[in-house]
Amino acid sequence: MTDDQAMELAMGEARAAGREGDVPVGAVVLGTDGTILGMGRNARERHGDPTAHAEIRALQAAAAILGTWRLTGTTLVVTLEPCPMCAGALVAARVGRVVFGATDPKAGACGSLYNLCSDPRLNHEVTITPGVRSADCGELLTTFFAERRDR
Amino acid sequence: MTDDQAMELAMGEARAAGREGDVPVGAVVLGTDGTILGMGRNARERHGDPTAHAEIRALQAAAAILGTWRLTGTTLVVTLEPCPMCAGALVAARVGRVVFGATDPKAGACGSLYNLCSDPRLNHEVTITPGVRSADCGELLTTFFAERRDR
Repeated sequence: MTDDQAMELAMGEARAAGREGDVPVGAVVLGTDGTILGMGRNARERHGDPTAHAEIRALQAAAAILGTWRLTGTTLVVTLEPCPMCAGALVAARVGRVVFGATDPKAGACGSLYNLCSDPRLNHEVTITPGVRSADCGELLTTFFAERRDR
Repeated sequence: MTDDQAMELAMGEARAAGREGDVPVGAVVLGTDGTILGMGRNARERHGDPTAHAEIRALQAAAAILGTWRLTGTTLVVTLEPCPMCAGALVAARVGRVVFGATDPKAGACGSLYNLCSDPRLNHEVTITPGVRSADCGELLTTFFAERRDR
């Protein structure tokens, strides 16, 4: 599966989050062979859980499938640049690569405010591929917030 | 409940994690009135979940009790300085204050490598109280790793 194809799936998860009243962010975890190990969407409001970001839920799903917390060699594909919590989770899970869509200048931790994925002081580094389908991913967010303002 | 009393409970959680084969780290979340809203211990190995750090699990427990992801005004007490994932979670959850025991020079994100809790660019800041029962909290970890080396 290409990065673009995986991002399309992540965008589907994001749209589902939006329909459920959560900020539309979605994520997919791919194994070393490109198969899907887990998917997740933001459920902070729906679950009333501050940790229920799309990336955290996708990592949990992938770990459950693999039966280990070590997600070595996997790729996480997410519609929005991960926040500090989620970038830290990528490092903690030993994810190999992160692909993201829209950048997050207010809270992004994969290059915008921080780059927690590329810090040689930490015990793992994650390769970053930014800007995949970034316009489409960003539009999901701007549309969601515009519709809420109009209510 | 004082910080020391809460840390004693967090240390109990940490010891339980160690008995279960996980690195002994424990956490407690206190409400604005000092009552316990949630507790958690590291279960990364036991659950095979990279996100199952003590802090994440305690925050999830507190949010479930309160019925909301906004943990405004709460205090999280944890035996070890939070990593980037967990410090990011404290900010995401709008926790008011974090109390920690031992510092973590290798991965700490509340003053050691980063200070994610005190960054005016992020949309929330968390007051930090470091060094509560730090020697006892650190000894839990050194004993755990020493025993594993001796096997």
